[in-house]
Amino acid sequence: MATDARPTIRDIAREAGVSTAAVSFALNNRPGISDATREKILRLARELGWTPSIAARALSSQRSRAVGLVIGRPSRSVAAERFFFHFMTGIERKLSEERYSFVFHASATMDDELDTYRSWWAERRVDAVIVVDLLQDDPRPEFLRSLGIPAVFAGDDPGYGAALLSDEEALMETVVAYAREIGVDSIGYVAGPRTIVHSRRRLAAFETLTASAGVRGIGTAAAEYSRVAGHEAVRELATAGMPRLIVFDNEVLCLGGSRELARQGVAMPDEVALLSLEDSQLCEVMAPAVTAVRRDPAEFGERCAALITDLLRKRIEDGARTIFDPAPEIIERASTAL
Amino acid sequence: MATDARPTIRDIAREAGVSTAAVSFALNNRPGISDATREKILRLARELGWTPSIAARALSSQRSRAVGLVIGRPSRSVAAERFFFHFMTGIERKLSEERYSFVFHASATMDDELDTYRSWWAERRVDAVIVVDLLQDDPRPEFLRSLGIPAVFAGDDPGYGAALLSDEEALMETVVAYAREIGVDSIGYVAGPRTIVHSRRRLAAFETLTASAGVRGIGTAAAEYSRVAGHEAVRELATAGMPRLIVFDNEVLCLGGSRELARQGVAMPDEVALLSLEDSQLCEVMAPAVTAVRRDPAEFGERCAALITDLLRKRIEDGARTIFDPAPEIIERASTAL
Repeated sequence: MATDARPTIRDIAREAGVSTAAVSFALNNRPGISDATREKILRLARELGWTPSIAARALSSQRSRAVGLVIGRPSRSVAAERFFFHFMTGIERKLSEERYSFVFHASATMDDELDTYRSWWAERRVDAVIVVDLLQDDPRPEFLRSLGIPAVFAGDDPGYGAALLSDEEALMETVVAYAREIGVDSIGYVAGPRTIVHSRRRLAAFETLTASAGVRGIGTAAAEYSRVAGHEAVRELATAGMPRLIVFDNEVLCLGGSRELARQGVAMPDEVALLSLEDSQLCEVMAPAVTAVRRDPAEFGERCAALITDLLRKRIEDGARTIFDPAPEIIERASTAL
Repeated sequence: MATDARPTIRDIAREAGVSTAAVSFALNNRPGISDATREKILRLARELGWTPSIAARALSSQRSRAVGLVIGRPSRSVAAERFFFHFMTGIERKLSEERYSFVFHASATMDDELDTYRSWWAERRVDAVIVVDLLQDDPRPEFLRSLGIPAVFAGDDPGYGAALLSDEEALMETVVAYAREIGVDSIGYVAGPRTIVHSRRRLAAFETLTASAGVRGIGTAAAEYSRVAGHEAVRELATAGMPRLIVFDNEVLCLGGSRELARQGVAMPDEVALLSLEDSQLCEVMAPAVTAVRRDPAEFGERCAALITDLLRKRIEDGARTIFDPAPEIIERASTAL
């Protein structure tokens, strides 16, 4: 392996023929050495290409200039993978601009996730964390508060750190308005799992909005983001009287649902139209191709990262709450061509 | 924002009523203080929950216990996204086991990538890096060598650091043997871009193996991993006399190719069968569903991470070369049902 060629204070001291303490005084602009020595040391430091290490700066400032994110172990769900990949690259892009680095860990269990926060913090690997997919009775906000780790919560506001809430109401308004526009008078909605707080918010918004629009709205929550759960949700909607349009929380649920409709011999879109709240290449390739709401998880990630850097610089207060409203865009395809 | 509650050497010193130097002597097990003082300090350190910070350890050992990866900016190619997401989670899983953290950066240009390595190294943010998709005349190996950054190269061996080579020959042997098994006597192959070293190796292996198997082999390199490039490659194969089976480097090329065949009115699989060298949900949803080789990018990532930790512990030498041979498995679907 190559030797580590990065110059240290010791190298500068040796070259200058002075003590390491003298080098430290010069580099930190403190008194105690002559101007001539100071100049000599600074010149040598430049010549040797000396850079203060993050480690040295972290020690003196107690800061690592890194932000952490823990995600669930890859779920084999292409939708979750796509979301997380773009979310992570968005976070990283913003952090990189701000000269922070980005550390992530894929965790199998909640205990592992909490342990990760504990050790990241104890070892000063991160200055703050971003938390996603808050659950009912989620232990993370209180745990992070007890350790004192600055945090941004994506999707819900637990009253600690800062929160970035997506505008579920605006999303549902767009969808219900679109349904009216294409002449649909009954809408089924297959929401994400009830355990996730933002899924419940979305389902509640759906129920309020369909009621006020005078449209028959039938909501149901999927057991998980899987194809099988998509099949089951469609069977459940069918027993309540099949709606004219089914809206799915993501394209994997939609794929399962679409296969269940085909199995039941339901014609799409002539009898039932489909809409997915996440877009991807899968929506284009399904038969019929599925109309979808296009949003940008990378932009959501960037906004989370911006909140974290604001929190760390004390530009915003603990408990700050921001709405993410990217003006959802509907990409029309054959599944809603009525 | 919460105050940083992590105890420091200063806190221990104050509690113990001794100097910070005395605490340092005790924690580093050095002489210069009485046994009674040492015991008192160690007891207080335990009670306060003191942990040596990564920063402090990095300063004394010149190590950050972190490994970095730079990837190209998300390409909007679902195949690349899926590969990188799983590759990264595999790297992270192994590094996490070894108590390393994982830092990544998405880079727009080669200059940005080189700058990232330079600053990661100067700031001691990483101990080593993993490099993917080596190009013809790639500047990265020489740049990393000049800085002295330990590196693992995934997919090619530039003679610096360690290399993990995927077994392109074994992959192509499996594919050609499968083609013979289903009774195919001409195979077209749409390889990845010629600028990527492992694509050229794969194309060369294809040409050698089809020749020795007595099968007509027509290879072509795609301009990029896109649907449009898939269309173009199929048009190119058609002018050379359409082969009975077309093998695509990934499912996005395959999707473009399949649409081009449909446009030309070619029946699949009756006239032309299809096989993708990457599997994903897209392969299942395409019509006809596409037979694919299943490999595991997460396992490839784990192996890269294992090589890095071996290199850092000097268990392997600079220049070490390892073959990744995961025994490719073919998942049969309608596109090869002859």
